[in-house]
Amino acid sequence: MPEIRLMRRVLASNDALAAAQLKVLDRHGVLGINIMSGPGAGKTSLVERTAEALGRKYRIQVIEGDIQGDLDARRVTAKGVSCVQINTQGACHLDGLMLGPAMGEIDFGKLDLLIIENVGNLVCPAEFALPAHYNVTVISTPEGSDKPVKYPLMFSKSDVLVINKMDLLPHVDFDLPALKKVVRKLKPGITFIETSARTGAGVDKWVAWLEQKLRARRKSR
Amino acid sequence: MPEIRLMRRVLASNDALAAAQLKVLDRHGVLGINIMSGPGAGKTSLVERTAEALGRKYRIQVIEGDIQGDLDARRVTAKGVSCVQINTQGACHLDGLMLGPAMGEIDFGKLDLLIIENVGNLVCPAEFALPAHYNVTVISTPEGSDKPVKYPLMFSKSDVLVINKMDLLPHVDFDLPALKKVVRKLKPGITFIETSARTGAGVDKWVAWLEQKLRARRKSR
Repeated sequence: MPEIRLMRRVLASNDALAAAQLKVLDRHGVLGINIMSGPGAGKTSLVERTAEALGRKYRIQVIEGDIQGDLDARRVTAKGVSCVQINTQGACHLDGLMLGPAMGEIDFGKLDLLIIENVGNLVCPAEFALPAHYNVTVISTPEGSDKPVKYPLMFSKSDVLVINKMDLLPHVDFDLPALKKVVRKLKPGITFIETSARTGAGVDKWVAWLEQKLRARRKSR
Repeated sequence: MPEIRLMRRVLASNDALAAAQLKVLDRHGVLGINIMSGPGAGKTSLVERTAEALGRKYRIQVIEGDIQGDLDARRVTAKGVSCVQINTQGACHLDGLMLGPAMGEIDFGKLDLLIIENVGNLVCPAEFALPAHYNVTVISTPEGSDKPVKYPLMFSKSDVLVINKMDLLPHVDFDLPALKKVVRKLKPGITFIETSARTGAGVDKWVAWLEQKLRARRKSR
């Protein structure tokens, strides 16, 4: 199976590249967040809400990963936050190599927060480290509470699980306690945040988590 | 970029393998269906509904593709349909090689319909041909109507687009005409079927489409 051996080599060199890129963020006291989810769970809506809440208080840069198009970048810049759109041209995830050119463009000395929105995919992005201090996974209630059982790697790599589309809870079959139980086994100590990016409910808790991390990083400068 | 060249070789040999596997189905007049979607769009629910509607009339075999676990296989066999669970052990899609052992187990002479439920992923499965006459993609209304713009390959490879969770339409932002317009450009002549696998609404249209294809194949035996 030559492709598996090659894949391991690719993963190892990506880990090294992402670690080097993270050092650039650390040198400037910038907080890096990697947001992952399946398609349509609400990553971009969460980024929009974040821009609304923190865009005047902190200097934010977004990197949007999409297979093609600039829909999400246009949504984010409409909120007054600068954004680099990376088109992966078919690739199912972002990695350090794809981020390379964007990392060269960004003036980290004038930044507080880098938000990387990964390609919508609950599988592959979990395998590729990015220059981020925290991995944030978004799951939405209509996807069903069995997702951690079926896509365990993503959840085991997450520091925060945002459970989004809570407004749809009355209309779908979603067992929140069962989900949390499985996720806690995959990642002990994970932080759960329940939101509706559409209505705005619970977004304050996400923003509070983010501000706490931002303040801690500022102090360490 | 050696991994890309290697990937092309893998894709080409998979095409050949899947074509050979499809010949086995053809020899026995079996209809093959490859169902794809992002995580939690409702593939398994659709398979359950199909088993309920056609399980006594046709001899059905399901192959479930999941990264790990047998949740879906248990749901499907509970409907009285036999099922092979393939665990991809981390891989983000099914391919001909992974199907190999299952293909050897199945007695195609005693079968009318093979349903392959792919790994929940709107990206990678579209690249790997399987022994199927039709690719069926399921999209659910909470995922948003922008998905074809962002994941065009999947839609361009689909013969049928099942638009599921239509019961949630009043609660989400989903522009059905806009979605259809984009998808028709990616795949002219694609068949749209609107369903709620949860309530059962519209499932009759899906079943009618499937029966039409099953009857056509029976005649050709």
